[in-house]
Amino acid sequence: MRLPTLKWTGRALELIDQTLLPGELRIIKCERPPDVHAAIRRLAVRGAPALGVAAAYGVVLAAADGAGRSVEKLRRLFTEAAAYLETARPTAVNLSWAVRRMAAVAAEEAGTAEGLYERVEAEAKAIEEEDRQANRRLGHFGAALLRDGDAVLTHCNAGALATVDYGTALGVIYAAVEAGKRISVFVDETRPLLQGARLTAWELTQAGIPATLICDNMAAAVMARGEVDCCLVGADRIAANGDTANKIGTLNVALLARPFRVPFYVAAPLSTVDLNAQTGADIPIEERADDEVTTFAGCRTAPLGVEAFNPAFDVTPGRLIDAVVTEAGVARPPFAVSLARLKGEPHRPAV
Amino acid sequence: MRLPTLKWTGRALELIDQTLLPGELRIIKCERPPDVHAAIRRLAVRGAPALGVAAAYGVVLAAADGAGRSVEKLRRLFTEAAAYLETARPTAVNLSWAVRRMAAVAAEEAGTAEGLYERVEAEAKAIEEEDRQANRRLGHFGAALLRDGDAVLTHCNAGALATVDYGTALGVIYAAVEAGKRISVFVDETRPLLQGARLTAWELTQAGIPATLICDNMAAAVMARGEVDCCLVGADRIAANGDTANKIGTLNVALLARPFRVPFYVAAPLSTVDLNAQTGADIPIEERADDEVTTFAGCRTAPLGVEAFNPAFDVTPGRLIDAVVTEAGVARPPFAVSLARLKGEPHRPAV
Repeated sequence: MRLPTLKWTGRALELIDQTLLPGELRIIKCERPPDVHAAIRRLAVRGAPALGVAAAYGVVLAAADGAGRSVEKLRRLFTEAAAYLETARPTAVNLSWAVRRMAAVAAEEAGTAEGLYERVEAEAKAIEEEDRQANRRLGHFGAALLRDGDAVLTHCNAGALATVDYGTALGVIYAAVEAGKRISVFVDETRPLLQGARLTAWELTQAGIPATLICDNMAAAVMARGEVDCCLVGADRIAANGDTANKIGTLNVALLARPFRVPFYVAAPLSTVDLNAQTGADIPIEERADDEVTTFAGCRTAPLGVEAFNPAFDVTPGRLIDAVVTEAGVARPPFAVSLARLKGEPHRPAV
Repeated sequence: MRLPTLKWTGRALELIDQTLLPGELRIIKCERPPDVHAAIRRLAVRGAPALGVAAAYGVVLAAADGAGRSVEKLRRLFTEAAAYLETARPTAVNLSWAVRRMAAVAAEEAGTAEGLYERVEAEAKAIEEEDRQANRRLGHFGAALLRDGDAVLTHCNAGALATVDYGTALGVIYAAVEAGKRISVFVDETRPLLQGARLTAWELTQAGIPATLICDNMAAAVMARGEVDCCLVGADRIAANGDTANKIGTLNVALLARPFRVPFYVAAPLSTVDLNAQTGADIPIEERADDEVTTFAGCRTAPLGVEAFNPAFDVTPGRLIDAVVTEAGVARPPFAVSLARLKGEPHRPAV
């Protein structure tokens, strides 16, 4: 049985250190909000849904200082932790969505500190459980998009390791396989940090699903050979119009799929849909340090003195996306209407 | 002053071992045809024009055994070496073009073994000198395509290290800079073997030309920001209709350039144009070992048991190419006409 991506023990949040996979399986224990903040920043835990759950428990961990404190003191610790954890990474909206939800619960009336703590902890557990269920449901809806024998190209890791369990894009593949379909997967290695090679190839190999690892720049060659039936990726934030921020290189895949008439699908829980972002232009894109590009595994690969550009994400326009798979169903264009409907809010035209 | 990519000493072919750059600058000495064959296969020397010149000298090295032999014996040694060296790598046509040219000279009448040796050695020197001059001339023609202030995106290494000197795609950039234009370059790192990060970034840094290293999967993001004015790459083989085999990932760049209306240019000597290949379907594509994809710098990056796909080249359709820069001028579509004209042969319609 696979180890869980993250596990709440009641006193600590235990995480698989994903920077070490697949070479080493090490569990790290977070006992204070700064531990979670650091784990998020250095990508020990990553993937939009997993970030939301990890940050939610990070808020609970603020109470490690709170025993015997007043309700008001405890409330302030939770609220401060939520604001602090929200700064860990900017692009995946699940992070801010989860900590704001935690802050809202922390702000509610509470008779005792113990009562407040229990309510806040219960909210983090609810976020975890909702993610677990959302992945199963979106896997079920998405599986209908895959036919027996399909070869799917995926980018980065939107699997069990990016979520509490099961995964979004890979959850769709797992659900299709569980439904008896034979699915094979082309895995973009996903430079610079190789989440495809390290995490997705590992997950698929463990699941016994045929996987072929390719360098990111081979996607067009594979599509040109007619070997890809669809592309399926996760998301870090989806704007109201369907514009989708996801791991850098996703835009490449979406643009390449178009001339080869390969459908391009996004799978994400509704917590990734940010109706406050009208378009991709409203999504902040994290830029990370040059040395992720100029070095590898401690080896310098580029000459000293050369600059690098290292955006962690890009934005794929909604018009390049054929469907967004969510736990409430499959959204089709026009996304401004379909996403708002699934999210349970009326379509709000841009002002 | 830069060390030459390769140097004929009269007794040996000295090569920079490009697999070690930029960390280490080591010269390897090839004294027999198998030394050259091995250097080509393991990419110590690479780049279509450089392969042609290296293989030509590899043929000359067959005579290391030939002293005191008869003309016929020497001729056979040259001919066998040419056939042997042609097998080192399949895609770059310059390799077979050069060794066939060497074999043809070796087959000519010769009074003495010394005379035959001198003629064969002179042919290799001619191929080297022609490459040097071709790069300068194509640089001059290509520079007219670049405007002052342009940012050029390039893939792999088509620089001095891919040729005897100066380079093809980078030769165009060098010539534009020498003509007083300010040019900056986005350098695709070019997985799996990182010729962009290791070689192109190194050459440009040494030349003082502003270079920004990107992962291959960032090309679309950079184009989407409007930061790329044109794409410029080398070639390993250009078919009669303009279909161009070049380093894997070139097709990605060409397809991505189109929706952003970024011109896509190829720079190559006419020795890279193979009128015997009607289309890209006639170009053999080398597939290399999985471990180039599943490891990096000796570190395994992917789980054991996962398969990889590792084509060394892809084919960009001529319809995605705006111009082919050669030493005889700039070919524009339709390439079936323009390339044949520059090559000095009439257009031969497909049968």
